Amino acid sequence: MMNEQFRSPADVSSHDQLLDRLAEVAVRVGLGLKPGQEVVLTAPLEAVPLARRITEHAYKAGASLVTTFFSDEEATLMRYRHGRDEGFDTAASWLYEGMAAAYRNGAARLAIVGEDPSLLAKEDADKVSRANRARSKAYMPALNLIAGFDINWSIVSAATPAWAKAVFPDDPEDVAVSKLWQAIFSASRVDTPDPIAAWEKHNAALQARTRMLNDKNYAALHFRGPGTDLRVGLADGHEWAGGSSQAKNGVVCNANIPTEEVFTTPHKDRVDGYVTSTKPLSYNGTLIQDIQVKFESGRIVDAKARTGEAVLGKVLDTDDGARRLGEVALVPFSSPISQSGLLFFNTLFDENASSHIALGQAYSKCIRGGGDMSEEELASRGANKSLIHIDWMIGSDKVDVDGITQDGASEPLMRGGEWVTG
Amino acid sequence: MMNEQFRSPADVSSHDQLLDRLAEVAVRVGLGLKPGQEVVLTAPLEAVPLARRITEHAYKAGASLVTTFFSDEEATLMRYRHGRDEGFDTAASWLYEGMAAAYRNGAARLAIVGEDPSLLAKEDADKVSRANRARSKAYMPALNLIAGFDINWSIVSAATPAWAKAVFPDDPEDVAVSKLWQAIFSASRVDTPDPIAAWEKHNAALQARTRMLNDKNYAALHFRGPGTDLRVGLADGHEWAGGSSQAKNGVVCNANIPTEEVFTTPHKDRVDGYVTSTKPLSYNGTLIQDIQVKFESGRIVDAKARTGEAVLGKVLDTDDGARRLGEVALVPFSSPISQSGLLFFNTLFDENASSHIALGQAYSKCIRGGGDMSEEELASRGANKSLIHIDWMIGSDKVDVDGITQDGASEPLMRGGEWVTG
Ligand SMILES: [Zn+2]
Ligand SMILES: [Zn+2]
Ligand SMILES: [Zn+2]
Ligand SMILES: [Zn+2]
Repeated sequence: MMNEQFRSPADVSSHDQLLDRLAEVAVRVGLGLKPGQEVVLTAPLEAVPLARRITEHAYKAGASLVTTFFSDEEATLMRYRHGRDEGFDTAASWLYEGMAAAYRNGAARLAIVGEDPSLLAKEDADKVSRANRARSKAYMPALNLIAGFDINWSIVSAATPAWAKAVFPDDPEDVAVSKLWQAIFSASRVDTPDPIAAWEKHNAALQARTRMLNDKNYAALHFRGPGTDLRVGLADGHEWAGGSSQAKNGVVCNANIPTEEVFTTPHKDRVDGYVTSTKPLSYNGTLIQDIQVKFESGRIVDAKARTGEAVLGKVLDTDDGARRLGEVALVPFSSPISQSGLLFFNTLFDENASSHIALGQAYSKCIRGGGDMSEEELASRGANKSLIHIDWMIGSDKVDVDGITQDGASEPLMRGGEWVTG
Repeated sequence: MMNEQFRSPADVSSHDQLLDRLAEVAVRVGLGLKPGQEVVLTAPLEAVPLARRITEHAYKAGASLVTTFFSDEEATLMRYRHGRDEGFDTAASWLYEGMAAAYRNGAARLAIVGEDPSLLAKEDADKVSRANRARSKAYMPALNLIAGFDINWSIVSAATPAWAKAVFPDDPEDVAVSKLWQAIFSASRVDTPDPIAAWEKHNAALQARTRMLNDKNYAALHFRGPGTDLRVGLADGHEWAGGSSQAKNGVVCNANIPTEEVFTTPHKDRVDGYVTSTKPLSYNGTLIQDIQVKFESGRIVDAKARTGEAVLGKVLDTDDGARRLGEVALVPFSSPISQSGLLFFNTLFDENASSHIALGQAYSKCIRGGGDMSEEELASRGANKSLIHIDWMIGSDKVDVDGITQDGASEPLMRGGEWVTG
């Protein structure tokens, strides 16, 4: 039924209308763009139609200038096919430093994602991880401003052919692309009569949940399920976040479209036990599946994966913080994205269909008063620091979560993947 | 005959082959790329196939990283349609400063051009010139490194639909695009059996011409033709250039593909008389036709144009140097591009079909030893300084050029648009 919906001439206009609404949600809900702000937009070449509509809505909302960088996966592959080995430690630091300068100067940042989850599956793991590391390092000044919520930013997605074929491998490309667009429109709440109002309601629900968790002020979370028995200590003065949030520049934004998670900062030294991933992780073109990891005092001491283990190993060696957690997030199994039953091979979607943890850099805004703290103060609360921030999924309908109070008592939070209380 | 050539299946592969050769010429002849260099590439969205082939050849030639910025004319138009008036003084300085940092760090710079010559014809001249001025100012640090030949750089072109329709208005779009590609391939010498050898021969011929002119060391050039009687004093210690040249980083490059000109630096205070343009000038989307200008002591004191006069007037008000000359170039009427009989509405082509002058910034390499001179030294030789550098065409088969020796004697250089001596 979804395919046919997009095949009659009437539904072409419906697709255009939904695309336009997604662009409007990206600018108004995602960025909360303020008049006079510059916009730095990144997009895959295949997302030109969405990028144009976002550009139009950004100018209508008062953007002074929209600058778009289109990325081309063909060009990335050419580097691996023809580039010299020495070149793989090079990254465009001049560009990322330029972006950081734009953010410091008040620009908002919007990313359209839609990568081929397996783009680099056949390339040399050493080159892949060297290129990733060089880019992570070069991107650090810009990422700090984003992760620190100095500015309003957001990530939305576009259905590209390679991604669509990964999600719907049995369908012809055009059908797969239509189905993936439908899933994006639905998860992004633009197929509702009033998407802006739908987002206001959704943000209110997520904020009610974060208020409850902040009132509880748990010392730790305890995850149990097949292959998982993990105690995640929470940072001292941790704060739960979810839905919209106010950046330090005063603008209220929704950093992820879609978003279903509530999340906070674990304590970098207080994570113990073992955990098994429940969904594949696509990391910069490498698919990492069936991750099994053991933590001791916050640090990963053993890591395995059925696919992508070499890249995972090199990721963990990025820096000391890469072996520690920077985020823990709770998402019920009944969340709309999860209920679609689809595996997206894209973190923006899969992390919003499942409770998850992230290796690497913590969000300072998930520490009370963290926005004004020095790196030393943040570290003393337990906030982790790293070049990387990689979310991976550990929730399912077979995973239970308890909250551990400051007194050491266990309270059931989730059972069979669902919230125990409203 | 040209159309049919591109319509049979055999000729599709021929088009691909020519595109690949153009990419190879851009990298090997245009940039003279050295192993380990980064490449900063700019291209219109419509030029993705050429950009990809250039990327491939750049990696084959040892590029460490190719970073491409695709520009989208639709996005530019959206700014004029929906953007707030206050926004038009904003430019992406952070990006241009980033590019300048890349050049200082050793990157080569390749531009693919193919703009719609009349993109902004219907937009508000005030907004157009404010946006141009803001961009020129922001681009200055990068342009200085390019105009000063600190690095190897080159400009090539791609046939885009809007440009092709401007050149071939009576043809359907696909035919126009095919014809324009054919003209580009021909002017860029990639339709010869060995394009690299053809460029070596062509560079040698241009260099013989510059040697002759450098030996002459003329005090001035005198242009006479319909609506033109102009004496262009040459800078003290001026040096003629043409074809390939060595950048300060030691790399030999061909900055323009195609190129037919020999050019040097006029004296900014020694230009007198009047001159009439012989071809339309397309400047950032504005078509400026039938320019008539009067010079006194190097400075434009009167300027008119049949179309685009408002934008021309604002261009001349950019800064004091915008009213003075930074380049004078000689191109015979019999040059291959001129003989195509086409009007390209694109400076890269039209300036190589006609003798021309440029308003604004001079090339320091067209002063003997200029690469090592301070701005004051360059100015004392007569080299002009400005935010802009805009070439416009003043040659035709009705224009004669004399060289004026340091003794004040006249020697015939061109008659009826052709060189008097071999
Ligand atoms: Zn998360
Ligand atoms: Zn995360
Ligand atoms: Zn020239
Ligand atoms: Zn010029």
